[in-house]
Amino acid sequence: MTESMEMIQNITNVRGIKCWGLHSGVKSMRRDLGLIYSEVPAAAAAVFTQNEVVAEPIKLCKEQIKGGRAQAIVINAGNANACTGEQGMEGAKAMVKTTAEELGIPEDLVLVASTGLIGKPLPTEDILKGIKEGVVKLANKTSAGSFLANAILTTDTFAKEGFAQFEVDGKTVNMGGVAKGSGMIHPNMGTMLAFIATDAAIEPDLLQRTVKKCVDASFNMITVDGDTSTNDMCAVIANGLAENEMLTSEDDPGFADFEKTLRELMIHLAKLIVSDGEGASKFIEYTVSHARSESEARKMVRSISNSNLVKTAMYGRDPNWGRILGAAGNAGVPFDYTKADLYLGTIDDSVKVLEKGKPQDYDTYFMKKILRESHIRVHLDLGVGEAEAMGWGADLSTDYVVFNSVYTT
Amino acid sequence: MTESMEMIQNITNVRGIKCWGLHSGVKSMRRDLGLIYSEVPAAAAAVFTQNEVVAEPIKLCKEQIKGGRAQAIVINAGNANACTGEQGMEGAKAMVKTTAEELGIPEDLVLVASTGLIGKPLPTEDILKGIKEGVVKLANKTSAGSFLANAILTTDTFAKEGFAQFEVDGKTVNMGGVAKGSGMIHPNMGTMLAFIATDAAIEPDLLQRTVKKCVDASFNMITVDGDTSTNDMCAVIANGLAENEMLTSEDDPGFADFEKTLRELMIHLAKLIVSDGEGASKFIEYTVSHARSESEARKMVRSISNSNLVKTAMYGRDPNWGRILGAAGNAGVPFDYTKADLYLGTIDDSVKVLEKGKPQDYDTYFMKKILRESHIRVHLDLGVGEAEAMGWGADLSTDYVVFNSVYTT
Repeated sequence: MTESMEMIQNITNVRGIKCWGLHSGVKSMRRDLGLIYSEVPAAAAAVFTQNEVVAEPIKLCKEQIKGGRAQAIVINAGNANACTGEQGMEGAKAMVKTTAEELGIPEDLVLVASTGLIGKPLPTEDILKGIKEGVVKLANKTSAGSFLANAILTTDTFAKEGFAQFEVDGKTVNMGGVAKGSGMIHPNMGTMLAFIATDAAIEPDLLQRTVKKCVDASFNMITVDGDTSTNDMCAVIANGLAENEMLTSEDDPGFADFEKTLRELMIHLAKLIVSDGEGASKFIEYTVSHARSESEARKMVRSISNSNLVKTAMYGRDPNWGRILGAAGNAGVPFDYTKADLYLGTIDDSVKVLEKGKPQDYDTYFMKKILRESHIRVHLDLGVGEAEAMGWGADLSTDYVVFNSVYTT
Repeated sequence: MTESMEMIQNITNVRGIKCWGLHSGVKSMRRDLGLIYSEVPAAAAAVFTQNEVVAEPIKLCKEQIKGGRAQAIVINAGNANACTGEQGMEGAKAMVKTTAEELGIPEDLVLVASTGLIGKPLPTEDILKGIKEGVVKLANKTSAGSFLANAILTTDTFAKEGFAQFEVDGKTVNMGGVAKGSGMIHPNMGTMLAFIATDAAIEPDLLQRTVKKCVDASFNMITVDGDTSTNDMCAVIANGLAENEMLTSEDDPGFADFEKTLRELMIHLAKLIVSDGEGASKFIEYTVSHARSESEARKMVRSISNSNLVKTAMYGRDPNWGRILGAAGNAGVPFDYTKADLYLGTIDDSVKVLEKGKPQDYDTYFMKKILRESHIRVHLDLGVGEAEAMGWGADLSTDYVVFNSVYTT
């Protein structure tokens, strides 16, 4: 296989996985309906939004996933099917029913997701027609992954895909996924749409625990604007066609590689989402190290990365460590800044700004050069323990405000 | 007393209260040092920032306030005396010592506060010189309140003052205060500087409980940018010169009026702070009614008023109720939107946008007219209980981003 061919490996390279994305008419001109299908029933796990206002497809999906099995996922973009009441729930159910009928599989093996505007009646008929068209196209491999990745977007400016391979007891396992994000991205929940398929054989319970853990380290550690959607969802299906020995516990050989690959794939997709944050001009990686616990480190990463004052300072290329300390102090965990070192840098360079809480002399010209970069690293070393967490965020630009003040109801 | 004279009643109209504000040299050109002095020792209570990074004056003040008595408050602006280590603590102690010496009062009756840039060494000598100058000027009544109110400002664009009178057992009680705010204003703590003096006679323990309760209903219900400072503080002194019978419990006659007046004065100051939010183009009043508890109603008000998506929608004059429901759903309290009514309006008008979660038809032309106003009301009626909470916030404008990306370290 040549390198250029490897480049286009995607979710369709997972054994038994077929997909498609098409224009059903909900959005004008763009693909707005996606289908993912596994030739055999798969173990399934999902994490959903923690918002109290939950879209109809999420309500339905929470029931559908209870059996721990799925064979198809249907996703529409352009209409969130949220705050749509009975009409919306009937629409979501019809999406499931039609997908099952067209594919000839049981209804309880179909997951459903939506993204788009809240509170508009679901254009169910258009979507059902689209599902029928899409199922016919599932046989087609060319561009299918890209069409799917594009069909689930809303305000995103590019499609988000990822693929990885690893070995379990001599068997090659494939894992591929698609995601959508842009605005409304925030820690503390599913935070956006992400769908991952793998041909690994893994028990549903173990898969659910692992998905939760990996989401906590990836999608839950990114922030664009601190808000969370009614529709956030991350689902993973594992159809077992790699024929590895079934993973049933965290101690099984191969499980560590499975978890690591899933986490890295999710982090890859999460970073793509941040890169596409509405109006973002910078991608910022936050590390909090030497914390007393991972949970405290994560809270602090989130508090810093979600601070409007830190985000505007980054936009303004300002090494304003006072705002970073202030945000760290708001994380709701104990923080003694007199033990902390703070570094600002890029992928290549790093400048120590504080040592044990004391401002350090540094070359301000060099600092300006660093902060002009589009990829910034902020590293706060708490100096009190051994735990570490990472997170990723965007800056807050005037473009964000303009964008979100005109994306109208 | 003519009406025009009533207009300028302020903290200096409280019996026995003297104050001054002057330029000590910390800031260029502007008044930057304030003094408040009571001719007799007063009951004192305070609420401080909940940030884990705490400025040196706050650390010192927490000790000073333990006795429940104070006779003077000294405040410097332009330098936050935060993250300044030993030099900063020595500076704060010197501010207390010099104020006490110059006034001829015990050191433990002096409170100290600072606001301004974090992490710069405190210019202690300038400040001490300023204190000596200021104490001499305390005899002067003319403009003293205004000078004080101006001397504690940083990025504020106007001074914030308030005054109120009420009766307790036939005695007139006066209450006046000053505040500073602008950016870094957020619920969940002292949130800014506010100093209130009254000539009421009240026990320190009761005063502390009451101050905490009133701060929770006022300063803790405003938001500009969701960040919190290292220096936030609200202190109240009550010197008893009104000669009302000492208030010692919540059941005492006159206590209800005391609490109501203090709460209303704090709300008045809190609203002034929001009006002066960095780059704010709109003042928004949020009400959550018919909640199951006041605590849940407050959490929901804060979650909505602090959402960047709601704030940018307000800036963009967009009746985006989906964002309001989404933010309400993120408050961490149960929320069934199908029981909720939502109203958008101004002081004069109100439009029902949702009824029991269902979008209502309304005149979009009239809605546009409403959202062009600078004072907007958002009212979410949860329909599940009897509790209510109010809060106040600003929109998020491009000016906010520009302002905070150039306010440099």
